[in-house]
Amino acid sequence: MKNSILLILVTISLFRCANVPIPRNLDMKDLGILEAKDVTPLVIKALEQCKEQGISKLTFPKGTYHFYPTFAPDFYCAITNNDNGLKRTAFPLIGFDGLEIDGGGSEFIFHGKMLPFIIEESSNLKVTNFSLDWEVPFFLQGEVIDNDPVNKTFDIHVVTPHKLDNGHLYMSLEREDSPYERKYGYKFTQQEKYDQMVGQNIIWDASTKAPLYAHNRYSSFDTHHFPASQINENLVRLETSYKETPPVGSVFVSKGEYLFNRQNPAFRVFKTKNLLLNNVTVHHAGGMGLIAERSENITLDGFNVMLKEGSGRYITSTADATHFCNCKGLVTIKNCTFENMLDDATNIHGTYVRVNKILADDQVAVETYHPHQNDYLFGEVGDSIQVIDQKTLLPTREPLVIKNIKRVNEKISILTFSESVKGSVSVYDGIENITWHAAALIENNIIRNNRARGLLISTPRKVEVRNNYISSQMAAFRITGDLGLWNESGPCDSLIIENNKIENCVYSGIPQSVFQIDPQYESKKYIEGAYSRNIFIRNNEIRTFDASILKAMSVDGLYFQGNDIIQTDTYLPLFPNKPNLEIINCKNVKTDGNTYRLLSGDKGELSVKTDSAIQ
Amino acid sequence: MKNSILLILVTISLFRCANVPIPRNLDMKDLGILEAKDVTPLVIKALEQCKEQGISKLTFPKGTYHFYPTFAPDFYCAITNNDNGLKRTAFPLIGFDGLEIDGGGSEFIFHGKMLPFIIEESSNLKVTNFSLDWEVPFFLQGEVIDNDPVNKTFDIHVVTPHKLDNGHLYMSLEREDSPYERKYGYKFTQQEKYDQMVGQNIIWDASTKAPLYAHNRYSSFDTHHFPASQINENLVRLETSYKETPPVGSVFVSKGEYLFNRQNPAFRVFKTKNLLLNNVTVHHAGGMGLIAERSENITLDGFNVMLKEGSGRYITSTADATHFCNCKGLVTIKNCTFENMLDDATNIHGTYVRVNKILADDQVAVETYHPHQNDYLFGEVGDSIQVIDQKTLLPTREPLVIKNIKRVNEKISILTFSESVKGSVSVYDGIENITWHAAALIENNIIRNNRARGLLISTPRKVEVRNNYISSQMAAFRITGDLGLWNESGPCDSLIIENNKIENCVYSGIPQSVFQIDPQYESKKYIEGAYSRNIFIRNNEIRTFDASILKAMSVDGLYFQGNDIIQTDTYLPLFPNKPNLEIINCKNVKTDGNTYRLLSGDKGELSVKTDSAIQ
Repeated sequence: MKNSILLILVTISLFRCANVPIPRNLDMKDLGILEAKDVTPLVIKALEQCKEQGISKLTFPKGTYHFYPTFAPDFYCAITNNDNGLKRTAFPLIGFDGLEIDGGGSEFIFHGKMLPFIIEESSNLKVTNFSLDWEVPFFLQGEVIDNDPVNKTFDIHVVTPHKLDNGHLYMSLEREDSPYERKYGYKFTQQEKYDQMVGQNIIWDASTKAPLYAHNRYSSFDTHHFPASQINENLVRLETSYKETPPVGSVFVSKGEYLFNRQNPAFRVFKTKNLLLNNVTVHHAGGMGLIAERSENITLDGFNVMLKEGSGRYITSTADATHFCNCKGLVTIKNCTFENMLDDATNIHGTYVRVNKILADDQVAVETYHPHQNDYLFGEVGDSIQVIDQKTLLPTREPLVIKNIKRVNEKISILTFSESVKGSVSVYDGIENITWHAAALIENNIIRNNRARGLLISTPRKVEVRNNYISSQMAAFRITGDLGLWNESGPCDSLIIENNKIENCVYSGIPQSVFQIDPQYESKKYIEGAYSRNIFIRNNEIRTFDASILKAMSVDGLYFQGNDIIQTDTYLPLFPNKPNLEIINCKNVKTDGNTYRLLSGDKGELSVKTDSAIQ
Repeated sequence: MKNSILLILVTISLFRCANVPIPRNLDMKDLGILEAKDVTPLVIKALEQCKEQGISKLTFPKGTYHFYPTFAPDFYCAITNNDNGLKRTAFPLIGFDGLEIDGGGSEFIFHGKMLPFIIEESSNLKVTNFSLDWEVPFFLQGEVIDNDPVNKTFDIHVVTPHKLDNGHLYMSLEREDSPYERKYGYKFTQQEKYDQMVGQNIIWDASTKAPLYAHNRYSSFDTHHFPASQINENLVRLETSYKETPPVGSVFVSKGEYLFNRQNPAFRVFKTKNLLLNNVTVHHAGGMGLIAERSENITLDGFNVMLKEGSGRYITSTADATHFCNCKGLVTIKNCTFENMLDDATNIHGTYVRVNKILADDQVAVETYHPHQNDYLFGEVGDSIQVIDQKTLLPTREPLVIKNIKRVNEKISILTFSESVKGSVSVYDGIENITWHAAALIENNIIRNNRARGLLISTPRKVEVRNNYISSQMAAFRITGDLGLWNESGPCDSLIIENNKIENCVYSGIPQSVFQIDPQYESKKYIEGAYSRNIFIRNNEIRTFDASILKAMSVDGLYFQGNDIIQTDTYLPLFPNKPNLEIINCKNVKTDGNTYRLLSGDKGELSVKTDSAIQ
């Protein structure tokens, strides 16, 4: 004790008297975090101090901290595949180089509409040791406690904040209290999307905590608008035009209104290099868990998107757990668990822009179409790009370089090429940025119980996916690309998928394959040439109840080898007559060394359908 | 002729050879405007040229020009009393000093979501000689061709673009065509608010082209959501919970969804000094005709918000014709016609911010509440301000100066006063910016057939309103101020209303007075002291079918003198038992020299109710 005091005194006097660097660590305890009800302003202050003083580590004493939006700074963020807008944040990690944030094993609880971490124009960051959750979730959840198949109604016991208004059910988000809010708030909540009409829905299986098997029975085109009536306080009757009414005991979940239900991802990463997220658990996000854009070398090590034990919730992120668009360098995802998302575990891709108008031999106006790509930063001067034929999805010529690019508005930019593109570009063709494609290492992860797919990989850099456990509602892997709805680029080249355990995917009721490699052509007649190259799917253990294991289209170099396929009876087969392997317009294909163990225990023979007519 | 050619040659050689200023005029004809389908990019180019070359006049050859949003630059605009967001514009008059835009008598037709004129951080501008309209309006219009009072339905023949979906009627805005739009657009139109559910409605009288008399019979709380069904192509049946069904022959109009139906004002003016809009006619705007904020010396001379003859439309602007918030210097409005707006002719006011938290003796966090005031620029360093008691609406102490102000987010700023305010400020009190209040001259204008009020004036600078014709649905004048829903400041001082002709206002069915002076107290018990001072209402001709002419509350110096009041039988009186003049908590009141001619031709006596008990 005496020595400690002495040491402190010596240290203080050293700092005071000599030209010694100031401490590089800032402890949130010293800013009074233990006494604060709303810690947002303290964290903002601490980050300002870190930047001003060149502090390299910000630490939190272990605790449960509440972050409110009231005093959170906001920034207008255009976030691909999420909703753009002014975002209030508690961690504006903007313009930092060399900072570690150590949560000390704390729980960070967010309130209302917030984007917890905005990480932009930064480098060499580490963010570690905490979990992140919201007090009030961005979804509505209720157990089905009764149903009436004849009248097509079902009754749910809603356990999340909600309202009934004008015969519709709304999920209610947390708003800040004030006398004004109490008196006038009702005028604004629906229009400001704090009350969102029950919209995109999924019914969950309470026994598996996964989406219900053959969920397409519970989908219909007008789910956005089904009438609701109050039975008693938290008991609501919903009418539906589903093919079937959801079974009693299942759990109804809705994430609100399209284009307004991805406003609050947990981590937004943009123009950042060398970022490590380690030992971070996102229990919930109103959008993606992490969305990284135009960034380089992002590592997720023990970055989980996981349910909180005992929370009773069925949903983690309301969109993808993670998503990488227009990144380069190496994306590393290891030792992570991604479960119960309302979308994919990850998606690594670029985004094609489309030619709106040809302005000169070397100049075009390009456009992004999907509203989730408004203000997408496609490229900058010096990036290599190529023109993609809108029909064949193949490059029309050798790559070019961006000589100039000027944003006109959130949809249109004027792009000047390094040379003439006369004769090799048409209106509505795609343009792909080939500088910003990432390599990836995805290993030792668990992916389970999410709606939609496991991994979506669309990058021509080397990607290794190994030692993962995957049990997703749709395909375990989707390798695609399109000049259609989403305009996601690009093809794969050197993708290795090995030693993974894949168990009972493709149970949604929509026809999919465990491995689905399907560039999306506008018409079958345009299928020609190779979209992707060198895809290795080898030595995986694939347990599946259904027939379709692989569908591959337009691959040059497809190696499906040494996989152990084991038939299960977890669910009844949905599409039992599909071929096990379906190979369309591929060349250099090998499908040897696989085993197939039938339910009976007998050795089966994989059925292969090859369609080369359209090669 | 010979001399002219010589002059031209001499002029050209002068420009070429000598160090003579280049011509100060740019003609859009020289940029090829006569051949362009979409003139937006040409105007953008011309404005760039004006700025680069110091050109002082941009002229249009007379013509009809179409402005599309495709290649329009966009800017994030926070626009008080309208909807914030990224706005595409054709006239980004940002950072100009000394420019005249002469439309040459042209018609400017806008397409889709656009904000035609963004005028910011500019000075000494003149904009003149054109009309402005939209191809597809921001409202739905349909004649009532049948009704069923028993079943509370009525059928409308819709003449504007619309859709029926899920049992509701939507107004449809113009979107840009593309193969993508044709294939996928339906996924986005409702959520991007290009299809807006029929919401805020007014029923119009086809014979007067004004709102129906006693319109409150056709309003109800759930008008936002009334069910619709298609009878045939453009014939739609609406169910309603109105007290009465609208009569056959009346015209139903809806402007879509609250907080999304003011996205497209025609002129946005911000931080601009010395602006003249002359001989400009706004036939339509999806928001206000003009909204000026934090600007100085704005003159509207022959700035009309008027129906286009032969258009068949009932609506001009979907909100106020003009609106001035936080302006100073002199606002001049003369020789204008404002008709058929869905809100007031003008409103000149400031906006109180409210104290959210007291941070130090000289520092508070202030907040704006109404979503239409998000990111409102309340003040800058050096502005004079005062603290307003939330109950009495009176200043709590002498004025102060803003020593510092820092925006935290779109709701909250941190305000540091020039001195301590300890003891004279409470949470939820108002703060008024008294530097930014404008004087005004409003003369020779016509205001008619609009929903809502004529003129709202809330400024302590000298205001003269004379020689106007006013026939508005509610009060001709409203002089108010509140720390409630809108938080509009401030009181009037030296307001002269004289020699106006006011005809048949206050026919909405909601109790109002022709002159309504009513600061909005939270409770009657807080009515004390003078809110406004020195209001002169004199020598006006007031034709009215109803009883209530003046209601004045908390005025020190109220002069209602020399007015000629003439009773009409245009409508049946709605509130015949109201006193003609109602005077509450006022002092220094004079009501002499007025005449009152009854329907019978007899001279009447104005009834006066004075309530000084609460003084």
